[in-house]
Amino acid sequence: MEIGWLLKRASKAIHGHSSYSKLLLLFTLSSGGLVAYSESQSETGVPAVDVNQNEKKKKRVVVLGTGWAAISFLKTLDVSSYDVQVVSPRNYFAFTPLLPSVTCGTVEARSIAEPVRNIIKKKNGEIKFWEAECFKIDAANNKVLCKSNIENNMVGSGNFSIEYDYLVIAVGAQVNTFNTPGVTENCHFLKDLEDAQKIRRSVIDCFEKAVLPDLTEEERRRNLHFVVVGGGPTGVEFAAELHDFLQEDLSNLYPMVKDLVKITVIQSGDHILNMFDGRISSFAEQKFQRDGIEVQTGCRVVGISDKDITMKVKAKGEICSIPHGLVVWSTGVSTRPVVRDFMEQIGQAKRRVLATNEWLKVKGCENVYALGDCATIDQRKIMEDISAIFKAADKDNSGTLTVQEFRDVVDDILVRYPQVELYLKNKHLMDVTDLLKDSEGKDRKEVDIEGFTQALAHVDSLTKTFPATAQVAAQQGTYLSHCFNRLEDCKNAPEGPRHFGGSGRHQFRPFQYKHFGQFAPLGGEQAAAELPGDWVSMGHSTQWLWYSVYASKQVSWRTRVLVVSDWTRRFIFGRDSSRI
Amino acid sequence: MEIGWLLKRASKAIHGHSSYSKLLLLFTLSSGGLVAYSESQSETGVPAVDVNQNEKKKKRVVVLGTGWAAISFLKTLDVSSYDVQVVSPRNYFAFTPLLPSVTCGTVEARSIAEPVRNIIKKKNGEIKFWEAECFKIDAANNKVLCKSNIENNMVGSGNFSIEYDYLVIAVGAQVNTFNTPGVTENCHFLKDLEDAQKIRRSVIDCFEKAVLPDLTEEERRRNLHFVVVGGGPTGVEFAAELHDFLQEDLSNLYPMVKDLVKITVIQSGDHILNMFDGRISSFAEQKFQRDGIEVQTGCRVVGISDKDITMKVKAKGEICSIPHGLVVWSTGVSTRPVVRDFMEQIGQAKRRVLATNEWLKVKGCENVYALGDCATIDQRKIMEDISAIFKAADKDNSGTLTVQEFRDVVDDILVRYPQVELYLKNKHLMDVTDLLKDSEGKDRKEVDIEGFTQALAHVDSLTKTFPATAQVAAQQGTYLSHCFNRLEDCKNAPEGPRHFGGSGRHQFRPFQYKHFGQFAPLGGEQAAAELPGDWVSMGHSTQWLWYSVYASKQVSWRTRVLVVSDWTRRFIFGRDSSRI
Repeated sequence: MEIGWLLKRASKAIHGHSSYSKLLLLFTLSSGGLVAYSESQSETGVPAVDVNQNEKKKKRVVVLGTGWAAISFLKTLDVSSYDVQVVSPRNYFAFTPLLPSVTCGTVEARSIAEPVRNIIKKKNGEIKFWEAECFKIDAANNKVLCKSNIENNMVGSGNFSIEYDYLVIAVGAQVNTFNTPGVTENCHFLKDLEDAQKIRRSVIDCFEKAVLPDLTEEERRRNLHFVVVGGGPTGVEFAAELHDFLQEDLSNLYPMVKDLVKITVIQSGDHILNMFDGRISSFAEQKFQRDGIEVQTGCRVVGISDKDITMKVKAKGEICSIPHGLVVWSTGVSTRPVVRDFMEQIGQAKRRVLATNEWLKVKGCENVYALGDCATIDQRKIMEDISAIFKAADKDNSGTLTVQEFRDVVDDILVRYPQVELYLKNKHLMDVTDLLKDSEGKDRKEVDIEGFTQALAHVDSLTKTFPATAQVAAQQGTYLSHCFNRLEDCKNAPEGPRHFGGSGRHQFRPFQYKHFGQFAPLGGEQAAAELPGDWVSMGHSTQWLWYSVYASKQVSWRTRVLVVSDWTRRFIFGRDSSRI
Repeated sequence: MEIGWLLKRASKAIHGHSSYSKLLLLFTLSSGGLVAYSESQSETGVPAVDVNQNEKKKKRVVVLGTGWAAISFLKTLDVSSYDVQVVSPRNYFAFTPLLPSVTCGTVEARSIAEPVRNIIKKKNGEIKFWEAECFKIDAANNKVLCKSNIENNMVGSGNFSIEYDYLVIAVGAQVNTFNTPGVTENCHFLKDLEDAQKIRRSVIDCFEKAVLPDLTEEERRRNLHFVVVGGGPTGVEFAAELHDFLQEDLSNLYPMVKDLVKITVIQSGDHILNMFDGRISSFAEQKFQRDGIEVQTGCRVVGISDKDITMKVKAKGEICSIPHGLVVWSTGVSTRPVVRDFMEQIGQAKRRVLATNEWLKVKGCENVYALGDCATIDQRKIMEDISAIFKAADKDNSGTLTVQEFRDVVDDILVRYPQVELYLKNKHLMDVTDLLKDSEGKDRKEVDIEGFTQALAHVDSLTKTFPATAQVAAQQGTYLSHCFNRLEDCKNAPEGPRHFGGSGRHQFRPFQYKHFGQFAPLGGEQAAAELPGDWVSMGHSTQWLWYSVYASKQVSWRTRVLVVSDWTRRFIFGRDSSRI
């Protein structure tokens, strides 16, 4: 009993006094060693906040979303200068890169979710959160209209509006069905936790269906045919997870049908993982072949019924049909209706995706920012500014640019137009002044406007858009909070590059993305990774790198411990097959 | 990397070779000590089973259900003599006594669920399981009709039938609404895991609703009024869990509304926990009063709308109405439709609950057994057999019974009519022959049939039915499997009591329930317990007893480790408030 009492008291002490530093020691034999860590949180007590209170003096910032972009923004935002309100239909942040693991129970859904209120609690209650969905952005009147996403037993209409001085849109994207018939009705998606949980249940359903009496073998095979549409990282990782789940757990529990199971990945391109290095694609394809996962490349799905997938084999132009038990649709993202409506209001109706400038400010708006998957940065073309740049660089107004004059503006150019650096790298040019060489590669002392334009003519072809990944969204969130935090400072002392079109400097440096690499787990404790500097790593050791990176990137100590203990539990007991 | 490799290899070794003995060492600082255990499973490889295979020689046993009764039956059944098939809409066993803990995330749903296939796997694949619902028992033709409970994308109709030689009904009961209007539409139940998960989401919903802007204080209060109908162990434990959840976790996350929260328990009787000792009832009521949980006794709920509960105060006869945000209905159980239909077929239409004899055999059937919450034992009254008993005891046919003659049959009487022992205990009689004393308390040497009848006249008033608890169901399951295992042995050498009505002995001893006590956790790390021998224990130490008993009673090492780690996690990090 005494031990119990001690524990109880210790627990009370930890919970009661928020300034206590928590020291946790976890001994897990299964993870092969001793993990010791301490968590020090400097919580200073959460004061009660009047819900209707309005702090008139502070600028009101409204954030839509609780994904990677929004949470990164909130975590580093200095709330002493802003009155912050967050609106999202999900009251938690989900560590989305682990979603494929949730589909098979390698980690539990709650292990990768952190309540938003836990995160904002650390801001001393200065951030308000509403669990609601923004269904209309009223750009003209600077307000957003929201409705509660809780349906039953709602008091009042559940609708309300919030006014803002600054709006941060970080609502993410929705699944792109490419208007393929039957996708919405008959496919699973893999965008959020509910999706992953549904897939997990459905996989078990497929097995339970397949072993029922009175079925033909064909019917059993149909139920056990798992199809993934889309050979990107999510689809491939899901296929790999599923294969492990079948091999390691389900084949023991459903031995009578284990030989009827089949997994197929359908990819419209020529290779799966085609955004990765070619070596990774081949490695993945070879591994899948060994594992018996069928990869059908060059096929476009044209329709899905409750029992069959119809697709067009691009090379032959043939239409063929295959039976399925479960389909996961993982092909790309498209714009959410609320963002689409907003785009129409601000004159971006013709665009496919909401466009922002390099400072993440929405084009056509003064006080609206958009980040993460819901927007794309419309990188300024250097050709649009070429004469202004020339004019600004030509200090002596001689009509020609010397190498020295070019050198004086080149740093600003590199920051403002990142495609220039990519171009240099691509052309293997050692120095930026090499751009000014003539067509025969000889140094020129001076160039006129035509020569200058010609020298930079092909630079814009290397303008890149960022991929729709957690990494980009998180960096954008952190970048934007930095801008918000330094808004006053940078008004007086701008830190951005020279304003070639006008005078002075830009207030901030444009957003720059640092790519830290990308993983593609391939099952069987193997993974592939593309690391910075064009490094490629594949195999078992990469899987262990994956474990360490994903554990370290967790948003809180709580989720970190939970994820690691889930992995441990899986090693010892296998995955759970209860249909819950 | 090396540690990783070691771990991976160890894991593979464990998974790959089923004859390995698993040694797990869990060091949990929080539980204050070292728990070391080893799990030795003598799995001998799972052979592939042909689904359609029929072993003609063995008797076919069909088990309906995967709850306490069914799983206890399956775990101890000797499958070498039977061809066993299990039908249940749930492919897992849930440790139901921890359901109230799941409603608030003190333990996770999956931590108390063990897949049925994990359990039957240990029987070398001799047991077949179908995830389906039995919707009709065809007693005349010895078969059950089932339908798959997986709705979407079902191949075929999903219906099938199974023939049986013996049927074991263990489908449990359903919630009893007492035909109160609005209960089905507006109340939560707490019978299975899905219910508990729904409540968990709804509790968070209530808070998220309550903090939305533009609500009046009255509306906020309404949303935060949690009502429990039924003051039994489940209802009381839920109220206590909820109170802890609010105090320890939610009040930090929703500080702006924490003072508006209210919990009310509505009980039709005069006290909550009225099946327990009076001291426990008072202790619980006092604790709830200190905690601010309102207990409304003597109230009967007559109707529930989406916003209000209408009830009748019994003492005054008044009707009053209170607003609510969430109602949990936990008042008792009633018969499932499939059992009701079966009762009509076998002439039990007028009964409230399916009746079995003391050997768990359904009355009116030769080869159907029923156990757990779906049935009740119709204890044989001694008065019905009184003349047969007298005749059997009166060996010398003298028309009177001597003390010695009575002594000769008394053991059989005590086994066959357990109410006799209860009567003796109740009347504080030291010896069974005291029953034969005359009205003035004097010993009689002989009694005639009238005297004998008179002596036992009041015994039957103490006939008891067993409560609808996990403990009873589990013991019945084990008992029945024992009977099945010894069917052949006991045919030749019956082990039961004398057959007073006929000749010889009963094949088996009747089912006897051993009460090991019952817990009522009351929140704040306090619990009450009624232990065997009329012991009553209350307070913090009882809570620790509760922890140890519930950990030890888990159905597998997997769930045991998960439950203990959930408790540990709650101590360290608190409960999760994500709305998943």
